Amino acid sequence: MNLKEYLAEKKELIDRELQSYLPPAEGLYGKVAEAMSYSLMAGGKRLRPILCLAGAEAAGISTDNLLPVACSLEMIHTYSLIHDDLPDMDDDDYRRGRPTCHKVYGNAVAILAGDALLTEAFFLLTHEAYTQQLDPLRLRRVINIISEAAGIRGMIGGQVADVDAEGKEVDLPVVNYIHTHKTGAMITASVTAGALAGGADVYTVTCLRRYGRRIGLAFQIADDILDLVGSAKELGKNTGMDVARQKATYPAVVGMKAARDAGHNLVKEALGFLESFGDRAEPLRAVATYIMDRTS
Amino acid sequence: MNLKEYLAEKKELIDRELQSYLPPAEGLYGKVAEAMSYSLMAGGKRLRPILCLAGAEAAGISTDNLLPVACSLEMIHTYSLIHDDLPDMDDDDYRRGRPTCHKVYGNAVAILAGDALLTEAFFLLTHEAYTQQLDPLRLRRVINIISEAAGIRGMIGGQVADVDAEGKEVDLPVVNYIHTHKTGAMITASVTAGALAGGADVYTVTCLRRYGRRIGLAFQIADDILDLVGSAKELGKNTGMDVARQKATYPAVVGMKAARDAGHNLVKEALGFLESFGDRAEPLRAVATYIMDRTS
Repeated sequence: MNLKEYLAEKKELIDRELQSYLPPAEGLYGKVAEAMSYSLMAGGKRLRPILCLAGAEAAGISTDNLLPVACSLEMIHTYSLIHDDLPDMDDDDYRRGRPTCHKVYGNAVAILAGDALLTEAFFLLTHEAYTQQLDPLRLRRVINIISEAAGIRGMIGGQVADVDAEGKEVDLPVVNYIHTHKTGAMITASVTAGALAGGADVYTVTCLRRYGRRIGLAFQIADDILDLVGSAKELGKNTGMDVARQKATYPAVVGMKAARDAGHNLVKEALGFLESFGDRAEPLRAVATYIMDRTS
Repeated sequence: MNLKEYLAEKKELIDRELQSYLPPAEGLYGKVAEAMSYSLMAGGKRLRPILCLAGAEAAGISTDNLLPVACSLEMIHTYSLIHDDLPDMDDDDYRRGRPTCHKVYGNAVAILAGDALLTEAFFLLTHEAYTQQLDPLRLRRVINIISEAAGIRGMIGGQVADVDAEGKEVDLPVVNYIHTHKTGAMITASVTAGALAGGADVYTVTCLRRYGRRIGLAFQIADDILDLVGSAKELGKNTGMDVARQKATYPAVVGMKAARDAGHNLVKEALGFLESFGDRAEPLRAVATYIMDRTS
């Protein structure tokens, strides 16, 4: 399969959907709506919503009713980037190739825009016009999985451990905790959410979850490596920042070669969990392989 | 009825429940869990969860299964306070009689603790162990109402308009927008959420919503007045801050007497919407009356 075409096609679909959900940038809340749109429509890879759709496809489920679920994942991801970039957090000036939200709109509006995107995800997931075709019991479970992955037991837990580890000597278990929570939890939730919402059986969802856990960790290991050897231009953000901030990274803890090996092994394991899926899982396979080969 | 006893009894119930939902302050996410608990258990009035339970009682619905819904509202309220108090927002040092979250845990952890409480509300609302007794279609609607009230169409919209209005000459429509969104939206959602989740009919929910809109605005008008004439000790936060910050308030726009009159009129209107409810709505009536008489 042609992964590049697949990703481009899905990204276009998701971008169009995301745009249609956004509140208009007018009236007394206009400034926050504008900031939400600025960050959400900044042209990310849309990896999480694509994984959501690809996971459902792998399970043989139509993605027609799953776009709101997919898009809610991108809203949550974008909120986390806006808050991560704040001066009180990572203090980043560039993201996705342009000034970060708070550089353009100020810290107060950036905090509110992040809060609003997080809240909007749950508004979207429960809006009659968008999710009434989904089984409400499955939808409840999907919202629970997403909020678990986004919250203190997932992404936020990883984020606080990450902030905490800065400048400290940390070991592999701590880096693993940070990576599997900060990045891995939402990626795993993304791979399973669509299939689960659409009616996949327990075995299928379990395989997808195991696949998701491996690629989630591999993705963050690849990110660590790119921060060391990648091109700032291709990445759309400054490189070398992890070293400058003494961040807990895989290469820092196990060395570059072992980090690459770990990433490739995780991808191999991930592929193993897709063995029973047949051709329908080709996109998920291609994504897994791409993770360690990407340059941005 | 004895409102003081009613409020104390409900507050105790809610405090116990809230405590039981909190993640343990241990492990790598311990610092954020501690900050969540610090702010959530700081001893607020628990007005929103109490309104949720009282709204259900007024509708003749058992509150046995509604505590998670009630507590989710307090989590969202507390998150909004933590973020509002940040140096980038209102820069407040005291809240509920003690140092604000960021004064104790730093800005980064306070941002994350707020994010985590907001996310936790939706985790709680969809957790099988807590909400499986509720009809899933009604639950979806309740989550939609809560996320609408908390998001850009509600509380966050009001908050950005509030930040925007600081130091500017504003008129009554703008103050009304700020108050009905920043405070009113979540109070209205609170009054209706329990009844709706428990199966109330459309007429009942509509009356509760109308009651909620009036007391939500009256509550914020009373807050404006207390900031001018209240006691910092009783309020547990500094007074006179609205004037110092040139905030858009009711007394500033229409004068103290007209502000008091507006508040009392809203309470009267609110009581009117409860006429068909009989004795079961006594707590809601007492709360409405108390709003303009309170000193903290």
